[in-house]
Amino acid sequence: MNMNRMDILLWLAVQEDLGHADVTTEAVVDDGKTGAAVVIGRQSFVLSGTWPFRRVFELLDPRVRVEELARDGDFVRADIPVFRLEGPVRSLLTGERTALNFVQRLSGIATFTRRMVEQLKGTTCRLLDTRKTTPLWRSFEKAAVRHGGAFNHRFGLYDGVLIKDNHLAAVGGIAEAVRAARERAPHTLKIEVEVEDLDGLREAVAAGADVVLLDNFSLDMLREAVKINRGHTLLEASGGVNIETVQAIARTGVDFISCGALTHSAGAIDLSMEFEV
Amino acid sequence: MNMNRMDILLWLAVQEDLGHADVTTEAVVDDGKTGAAVVIGRQSFVLSGTWPFRRVFELLDPRVRVEELARDGDFVRADIPVFRLEGPVRSLLTGERTALNFVQRLSGIATFTRRMVEQLKGTTCRLLDTRKTTPLWRSFEKAAVRHGGAFNHRFGLYDGVLIKDNHLAAVGGIAEAVRAARERAPHTLKIEVEVEDLDGLREAVAAGADVVLLDNFSLDMLREAVKINRGHTLLEASGGVNIETVQAIARTGVDFISCGALTHSAGAIDLSMEFEV
Amino acid sequence: MNMNRMDILLWLAVQEDLGHADVTTEAVVDDGKTGAAVVIGRQSFVLSGTWPFRRVFELLDPRVRVEELARDGDFVRADIPVFRLEGPVRSLLTGERTALNFVQRLSGIATFTRRMVEQLKGTTCRLLDTRKTTPLWRSFEKAAVRHGGAFNHRFGLYDGVLIKDNHLAAVGGIAEAVRAARERAPHTLKIEVEVEDLDGLREAVAAGADVVLLDNFSLDMLREAVKINRGHTLLEASGGVNIETVQAIARTGVDFISCGALTHSAGAIDLSMEFEV
Amino acid sequence: MNMNRMDILLWLAVQEDLGHADVTTEAVVDDGKTGAAVVIGRQSFVLSGTWPFRRVFELLDPRVRVEELARDGDFVRADIPVFRLEGPVRSLLTGERTALNFVQRLSGIATFTRRMVEQLKGTTCRLLDTRKTTPLWRSFEKAAVRHGGAFNHRFGLYDGVLIKDNHLAAVGGIAEAVRAARERAPHTLKIEVEVEDLDGLREAVAAGADVVLLDNFSLDMLREAVKINRGHTLLEASGGVNIETVQAIARTGVDFISCGALTHSAGAIDLSMEFEV
Amino acid sequence: MNMNRMDILLWLAVQEDLGHADVTTEAVVDDGKTGAAVVIGRQSFVLSGTWPFRRVFELLDPRVRVEELARDGDFVRADIPVFRLEGPVRSLLTGERTALNFVQRLSGIATFTRRMVEQLKGTTCRLLDTRKTTPLWRSFEKAAVRHGGAFNHRFGLYDGVLIKDNHLAAVGGIAEAVRAARERAPHTLKIEVEVEDLDGLREAVAAGADVVLLDNFSLDMLREAVKINRGHTLLEASGGVNIETVQAIARTGVDFISCGALTHSAGAIDLSMEFEV
Amino acid sequence: MNMNRMDILLWLAVQEDLGHADVTTEAVVDDGKTGAAVVIGRQSFVLSGTWPFRRVFELLDPRVRVEELARDGDFVRADIPVFRLEGPVRSLLTGERTALNFVQRLSGIATFTRRMVEQLKGTTCRLLDTRKTTPLWRSFEKAAVRHGGAFNHRFGLYDGVLIKDNHLAAVGGIAEAVRAARERAPHTLKIEVEVEDLDGLREAVAAGADVVLLDNFSLDMLREAVKINRGHTLLEASGGVNIETVQAIARTGVDFISCGALTHSAGAIDLSMEFEV
Repeated sequence: MNMNRMDILLWLAVQEDLGHADVTTEAVVDDGKTGAAVVIGRQSFVLSGTWPFRRVFELLDPRVRVEELARDGDFVRADIPVFRLEGPVRSLLTGERTALNFVQRLSGIATFTRRMVEQLKGTTCRLLDTRKTTPLWRSFEKAAVRHGGAFNHRFGLYDGVLIKDNHLAAVGGIAEAVRAARERAPHTLKIEVEVEDLDGLREAVAAGADVVLLDNFSLDMLREAVKINRGHTLLEASGGVNIETVQAIARTGVDFISCGALTHSAGAIDLSMEFEV
Repeated sequence: MNMNRMDILLWLAVQEDLGHADVTTEAVVDDGKTGAAVVIGRQSFVLSGTWPFRRVFELLDPRVRVEELARDGDFVRADIPVFRLEGPVRSLLTGERTALNFVQRLSGIATFTRRMVEQLKGTTCRLLDTRKTTPLWRSFEKAAVRHGGAFNHRFGLYDGVLIKDNHLAAVGGIAEAVRAARERAPHTLKIEVEVEDLDGLREAVAAGADVVLLDNFSLDMLREAVKINRGHTLLEASGGVNIETVQAIARTGVDFISCGALTHSAGAIDLSMEFEV
Repeated sequence: MNMNRMDILLWLAVQEDLGHADVTTEAVVDDGKTGAAVVIGRQSFVLSGTWPFRRVFELLDPRVRVEELARDGDFVRADIPVFRLEGPVRSLLTGERTALNFVQRLSGIATFTRRMVEQLKGTTCRLLDTRKTTPLWRSFEKAAVRHGGAFNHRFGLYDGVLIKDNHLAAVGGIAEAVRAARERAPHTLKIEVEVEDLDGLREAVAAGADVVLLDNFSLDMLREAVKINRGHTLLEASGGVNIETVQAIARTGVDFISCGALTHSAGAIDLSMEFEV
Repeated sequence: MNMNRMDILLWLAVQEDLGHADVTTEAVVDDGKTGAAVVIGRQSFVLSGTWPFRRVFELLDPRVRVEELARDGDFVRADIPVFRLEGPVRSLLTGERTALNFVQRLSGIATFTRRMVEQLKGTTCRLLDTRKTTPLWRSFEKAAVRHGGAFNHRFGLYDGVLIKDNHLAAVGGIAEAVRAARERAPHTLKIEVEVEDLDGLREAVAAGADVVLLDNFSLDMLREAVKINRGHTLLEASGGVNIETVQAIARTGVDFISCGALTHSAGAIDLSMEFEV
Repeated sequence: MNMNRMDILLWLAVQEDLGHADVTTEAVVDDGKTGAAVVIGRQSFVLSGTWPFRRVFELLDPRVRVEELARDGDFVRADIPVFRLEGPVRSLLTGERTALNFVQRLSGIATFTRRMVEQLKGTTCRLLDTRKTTPLWRSFEKAAVRHGGAFNHRFGLYDGVLIKDNHLAAVGGIAEAVRAARERAPHTLKIEVEVEDLDGLREAVAAGADVVLLDNFSLDMLREAVKINRGHTLLEASGGVNIETVQAIARTGVDFISCGALTHSAGAIDLSMEFEV
Repeated sequence: MNMNRMDILLWLAVQEDLGHADVTTEAVVDDGKTGAAVVIGRQSFVLSGTWPFRRVFELLDPRVRVEELARDGDFVRADIPVFRLEGPVRSLLTGERTALNFVQRLSGIATFTRRMVEQLKGTTCRLLDTRKTTPLWRSFEKAAVRHGGAFNHRFGLYDGVLIKDNHLAAVGGIAEAVRAARERAPHTLKIEVEVEDLDGLREAVAAGADVVLLDNFSLDMLREAVKINRGHTLLEASGGVNIETVQAIARTGVDFISCGALTHSAGAIDLSMEFEV
């Protein structure tokens, strides 16, 4: 048995849809009947979510065989099968919706991310996600971001120090906050500070921050920030990042651009499971 | 203690973000410090998610007081506070992201639903959601749909018989499927059948279906379906439903329109927690 | 791995009996010893519970092989083996009591149900169970009812609208209650109302109830109800249902008879596991 | 918070019945409405189950106040209220069935036990339960046995050594089994051996057993066993124990009588929750 | 699937170390790479913990093969491999620390216990552990005590009656306490009483205690206690038990010596996992 | 309700000891009896574990009042009370062992750590713990290390990159490993590399490691390492760290010393709960 980290949540997700029984399927489909089906997109997309798709069926019924015809990160054209399933028809029908709900959302994230990343070609800037993810599915969504070609920011409150405006409001000033973090946080973590203007940047650099988050800076301010910084710390831009603006932001010379919309506002991909006759 | 049905999931969601510790907050904010903050939208929106917002803080730290300045279903203008929080600053900061992740998504659903529902004014047609929801958060998303003014279709595979194309492929025909469902499903459930053309509708009505789902029918076909049916069964339209088409579909006379995009493709509302000085 | 919906409960049930160790078996039986045993009834009975019986051993020790010599729903004579087990003797002994506790109870329900159902021969009336089941084991007990030949009423508060006397007391009247249910409950559910007299029935039919529950009606009242109804709604009788009365009730022409005793008062079947020498 | 040992199971039991929502109650009863109700038996009975009854409502909604008008172990006449509840009507209705399902079963056990215990008056013999209980609810059912006036045998495989026929079949003989148990089981546990005839008793006494279980002995054999034993070990009789036989068995002079029917075949008490107008 | 009693805790232990990802291993080791490693001690020791060691890897990745080169209870010299592992290098690295954390501690207990037990050679006295164990790992630690050659006292508050000084303070006196225990505790449990002087012993014997715990008795008092007791009850000594004193205590003639240090103060064994080149 | 991150584990720990009942306490102590007790050490020690001590009683019985007479990190002399408890005597007795098992172990860690830290006075070197902790209790043990005055290394595999010898064996060389980590690990984490000699250090510094772990270096090598490094990276020493060596290691000028024995081999503090008469 390989009790994966996410198995319990996936299993609860299956139960959420299934309840005590799939009354339709149990009423109209014979127990012993087997069959096959494929999953296709009705539009081109970047695939993500093969693992939860497969795992939903493994948890539901190990007799279902899931063949992956494409891999996470692949760009797939409309109407091209990405999965082929064989097994008891009842289980195919019962697992269909939950399994697709994962892939449609995660592929939506990967597809949108890919479009954004393509804007960064020719720069060394990396596109990052944020913590604006769907509760409980962050690890899947952050994987989808990687499948789309971008990189992950910290995974939670525990694996990176990021001193934000609300922290600064509570603690006094940038210098004091960085000093406290250096003193009390594990030495294995870098210290990042969010600043709102160029003075903030100067203060953060002077305080020895490892990374500075430039929030809602104009393109001019970003360019100025890069000059001021002269490579002392890593620079991350955020705010107002979208398909129209991302390239120009990258060209200012910042090291990273972080974008919440990658995970919170990508639309779902329209997928469909079709039974083979 | 009131161990709500969703508490364990909410608690796991808090843990997902928190891990072993909020290293930033513990390093830079004093343990005893208390404060207040408000949550505002940066755009107008229909609020949904007050319960998970409040509950995240209750689970995290019962000393946090959450005041709701608006109610689920309220239309709220930009920059108007919807929550005010008071309590230990550490807890406000630690719970912020998880709590907002719920509200930004659920309010996105409610806001998009409201726009769709407004198109139905003057008709008796009801807008319905689908099972294309985020795994584990279906009950919240279906509530958001209600807050937006629409209605819920079945909650899962267990509380409604819906014979879809894939079932029909497996069982043979409409008449046989309806008969089997009548025989084997609990008598407390209605029987709905998905059909793809007018012949399908005729067969479903003849078989005694309680509801017929007209999938991807053109407006002309929908109008014809309403005529053919003459009130025998309830009619539900689905497929190609969006802000441009929903009104015309409703005016064909169908009883229900179901729309997956309500829950799978509404963008998030841009919310922010701001500390009071 | 197939992590069945009931596995966690079954596993907890094994733990309830086992605690930290089966001290007797570990003290007196050698670890490597293997053996075989059969399960027999000391009386004739209708078998139910093969799944939890088998699953208890699978969870406890996958080396135990459980052979089912009869199927759920089979009528089995006394002293005829229904299971044969082979495997480590320690595991056979440790799982024995928990596994039998399921089968003795569920077969008791199936056996009692079968006796009741036999009284309905020659009628079209269906015997139904209720929600008066053992907490956490409802799905097994409702399956046992099916194995006995009867049908299931709703599974819980979520998959059927049943407006009972206490609801009516709270809401005002039958008409108002049915209207509210029609307005607010999902359109996939039928609406059933409990009534206490013939006026109640008339009101319920007029209000458009899909099913009417006739509670504690005399045989004469039931016959009158069938006349009044003239097929408009489905009729269900409850109250005072037992082996002496069930046939007469069925012959009044009601569609359903529901009976709590099926699940709450059937005695256990006397089963025994016997080791083969 | 007092997270009782059984809370998770009780909470799951509530969820089993509730699912995603009590659709009837939410549709027909206003959210803010409060009220009161009493629970009465339709027959005389010995009460058991006040704790799970109360706890179901505490878990569901802490605003519900449960007043206990009788205590576990009390003999209560028909139509006399045993609980009075006040609070939100929705919660009273939603919790009713699950809460009653506990009390009806546990009171059934206590009532049947009381009848059996009354047969033992004038003897020093103690009536014991067995491990033939409902999986997961053993602690409640063993409490019900005490409320009925009898005593508990061991709670599981972990808190008593009981060498049964199947153990003896696996290990060789009584002497060897008792020796092994003495050697390997914790010194805090007594050693009990099941025997099937008087030679078995003699062998068990010689081997130093602390208790001997006389299985399916006739009255004559029991009397002979008491003579042979001469107070060396405690004697427990089992098999064929019912309301007709229990007194005669007790009068043979055995120390204990154990009876599986106390927990596996007591019928439920007919209880009803009635709303006050 | 064999969902062992301890699996959930082991799985949580893996998660405690792993969190969302082993960032080092995922960054620097290729996914497909396989390899082998051995575990050796840097000192001689008595092995314990093979089961949790193996199970950690089984839960993490079923492709890892764990070969046990020694068995629990074996005395192993320094630098001699006790496990050999083969499988995906990533999984070997990710599971290493958690798996070793079990073996280093449990082998520490077994090794220390063995040294103590060797002092008892030539006596019939048994060395016992106590309930001073690491929370949640008691069953492993008590097994380690057995691997070291000692015996287990009761496993918890549920499988033995042990009336300690604090109970006596609460209840009045020894005679009263023993009487109450005899009356109310299951007849399957022996009754042990802790006494602080010889009068206490006399009172306990007179009251019919099955075992008497002589707490902090001097050697002279222990010898006197053995004389007074004349074999009526079992005698257990505790307090001030260490490698210097244990032999002399055993030679006083007591039946048992219990020692908390076996589980709470044995140092860890220094183990190391070494990859084969 | 404040469902703390560790509550479920603490609750399981209570259950581990309690099982179905504290048979002794329930048999000999009256249900209604209340009392008070204090906890004292039989030796001087540094206190740690007040939170789990208090929480065990809160989970068991909210009527128990726990007064903390000293705080985590306080040095406490023998026989001075550190907790005073009031409440139902049954609950005091039932929770005693589990609550003390936490404090005795955690205070042992804090006390040993304090002794080690005192050796570092006059240096700027920080003493660090490791991941050699008791499974599931790492957060408590790492807190105990802080209470003793030392600092925490990373909490798990997720919040710091530490490339150890086994990683290097798998990946090739230091330069390649650091490069891969820089490329693939989140930018919020520092990169630490373990080296075994001075060449390794040179290679790590050249590769841009943020921290270098000098494993089993002699004092001379450590001094040489400090010279070579010239402040480029942080230096951490490990191996052979004990009360005799720690001061000399610190004086070599390394930034950190990490020591597994802090958590895996500190003996327990001898604590006792004494009832007030």
